[in-house]
Amino acid sequence: MSEYVFESLEKTLETHIPGAELKEIKRILYGKELRKLILPQTALDAALERDFDLQGYVFEAAPEQLRAPSAVRVGLIQNKIILPTDAPVLDQITALHKRVGEIVEVAAICGVNVVCFQETWTMPFAFCTREREPWTEFAESAEDGFTTHFCQELAKKYNMVVVSPILERDEIHGGTLWNTAVVVSNTGTVLGKSRKNHIPRVGDFNESTYYMEGNTGHQVFQTQFGKIAVNICYGRHHPLNWFMYSMNGAEIIFNPSATVGALSEPMWSVEARNAAIANHCFTCAINRVGVEYFKNEFTSGDGKKAHHDFGHFYGSSYVAAPDGSRSPGLSRTQDGLLVAELDLNLNRQIADKWNFKMTGRYDLYAEELTKAVQHAFKPNIVKE
Amino acid sequence: MSEYVFESLEKTLETHIPGAELKEIKRILYGKELRKLILPQTALDAALERDFDLQGYVFEAAPEQLRAPSAVRVGLIQNKIILPTDAPVLDQITALHKRVGEIVEVAAICGVNVVCFQETWTMPFAFCTREREPWTEFAESAEDGFTTHFCQELAKKYNMVVVSPILERDEIHGGTLWNTAVVVSNTGTVLGKSRKNHIPRVGDFNESTYYMEGNTGHQVFQTQFGKIAVNICYGRHHPLNWFMYSMNGAEIIFNPSATVGALSEPMWSVEARNAAIANHCFTCAINRVGVEYFKNEFTSGDGKKAHHDFGHFYGSSYVAAPDGSRSPGLSRTQDGLLVAELDLNLNRQIADKWNFKMTGRYDLYAEELTKAVQHAFKPNIVKE
Repeated sequence: MSEYVFESLEKTLETHIPGAELKEIKRILYGKELRKLILPQTALDAALERDFDLQGYVFEAAPEQLRAPSAVRVGLIQNKIILPTDAPVLDQITALHKRVGEIVEVAAICGVNVVCFQETWTMPFAFCTREREPWTEFAESAEDGFTTHFCQELAKKYNMVVVSPILERDEIHGGTLWNTAVVVSNTGTVLGKSRKNHIPRVGDFNESTYYMEGNTGHQVFQTQFGKIAVNICYGRHHPLNWFMYSMNGAEIIFNPSATVGALSEPMWSVEARNAAIANHCFTCAINRVGVEYFKNEFTSGDGKKAHHDFGHFYGSSYVAAPDGSRSPGLSRTQDGLLVAELDLNLNRQIADKWNFKMTGRYDLYAEELTKAVQHAFKPNIVKE
Repeated sequence: MSEYVFESLEKTLETHIPGAELKEIKRILYGKELRKLILPQTALDAALERDFDLQGYVFEAAPEQLRAPSAVRVGLIQNKIILPTDAPVLDQITALHKRVGEIVEVAAICGVNVVCFQETWTMPFAFCTREREPWTEFAESAEDGFTTHFCQELAKKYNMVVVSPILERDEIHGGTLWNTAVVVSNTGTVLGKSRKNHIPRVGDFNESTYYMEGNTGHQVFQTQFGKIAVNICYGRHHPLNWFMYSMNGAEIIFNPSATVGALSEPMWSVEARNAAIANHCFTCAINRVGVEYFKNEFTSGDGKKAHHDFGHFYGSSYVAAPDGSRSPGLSRTQDGLLVAELDLNLNRQIADKWNFKMTGRYDLYAEELTKAVQHAFKPNIVKE
């Protein structure tokens, strides 16, 4: 049960390791030390009162002659569900709207320009159950649903781009379900949507029961605050997914997720960060928090006894930069808002330094990959 | 100068953090705790006497009904150069043969089946200088050079596959130079060679002055101990490079490198590990150690004063597994041999669990990448 009480890696390091060594440890684990963002006292007070972890960091870039700094503030929100999973569906959604709405209010005080919520943020992550009811009732229209309307109001009120990952009901294609992020412009317009490209079949992630691989490709959204893309959850394990968003021009790639400790925690700090490095862009990894209890027991295909929860969603949301630096993670156990000021000029500066796009030999890989997907592909193996 | 005295991240954590928390920290940073490999006392004594860091770990897999465990022991060797960089070329090479030979002898005592040396292991990493002489004299034939003969002797003597990354002189193509890993079978036969696919143009890595991008593609070598591939140094920043070796069947991908602290250390623990996770295989990252002094000063294109060394090569060689676990790193400052016993059955077990190859949608990416490399490519950007 230790994972439930262990609050954060960073706090443990800071508590126990003396100054000079701590500096080196942090350099190796986190890259260059980030300046803390000075947040308004009203925001700090509100976070304390509303009981969520609030942290702020600045990712700086060098000054340039021809471009002004391009500072954008992103907000990453992680949270527990509010009501029991057997409460009425609309009550559960409304309670989450209220909770996330009050965190967004603090984000606005902190000057956040683009906020992103966790995967399927209006519901418990109930796909472990394989039950249809009541979970499919949480699905909404991306363009015209209750939750999208709520986000449009937030966007207009706070002049903020809102990335809202929901369970989508696609009425014009036979009422199919999708795992979809709706991107709402700061004007309140729905800019578009980005569907989850890779669907897991691992452990309790029975999502392939509910929806298929996304068909929206690798769209990038040009917002007033920069070009953003959304790589939902399991897509973070697929380097090509990050890559293709980057090739389409993404400066910031959000990764709204729902993942549990026993399964993925040692990978969490590796994957989004590797993507930021490999693609010369910022990545924002967001994970939900807490344990969600389901009335009907389910099994996990691992020979263990039937049980009522998915395990502990470990939060730890963070931002990674193209220079290999990253922010500390939010709490493993508590709701949180991570505010990060990103100077997007850093992307091109690091690209010009490291040149991965230039040295990437993509023509070679296009050719090799095209061959590799053929049924008759013969692996290139040398034998004695 | 702190990086010169800081010996290892793991030692600092173990010194300062109390037991229960240490366990959680290690789980998050390193994945599941690895069993230490019990090494023969003669090996431990020899390592002490010969002054190198010797560590051993076991990566276990679950028992299966139809396949026996497939345990292979790999050895990763990191080392400083021996003689000053202005000593006669042949003396420098011979001194390195002697030093690495004595470490290989200990590897043999530890039962190593496949050993890999660091990038261009027979010479200083002199490409920072941009000088031709005497550095190009270190180049040798991959098939028939002094160093390959030396490795063939080691291979036969110890029944060991030897991966020997050298500066290659390719006489049959106009005497061109390449950055090449020679793969010598445990029978002593040269199984083939793998050239560095991605050449850096960053900081003091002026390698593009000396050699071009490799033309050997993504060959995998079927050895008696498993299918291996070699992704040399800068190729670790390119996820597609790892991926294509994996698509060709590599079970273990070696990444012999030469990289310095100020530039890449925060990326070091991320990239090879991400590749092991994303590709369901083992990766072995090897970096040289120490500071190499050059008689003629050179500049680094960063406005700073001309100087005589490249910076500190920080060692920290490690092995990463498909389940997200990794070994601790070897010393940041000392020569070393890391022995890891890998049960290759783990690769398929993790592949069957996580299914990245199945959920990878490579046909989609082959198509998108083929479009993206066209001059007239139009990024997929949605605007309001």
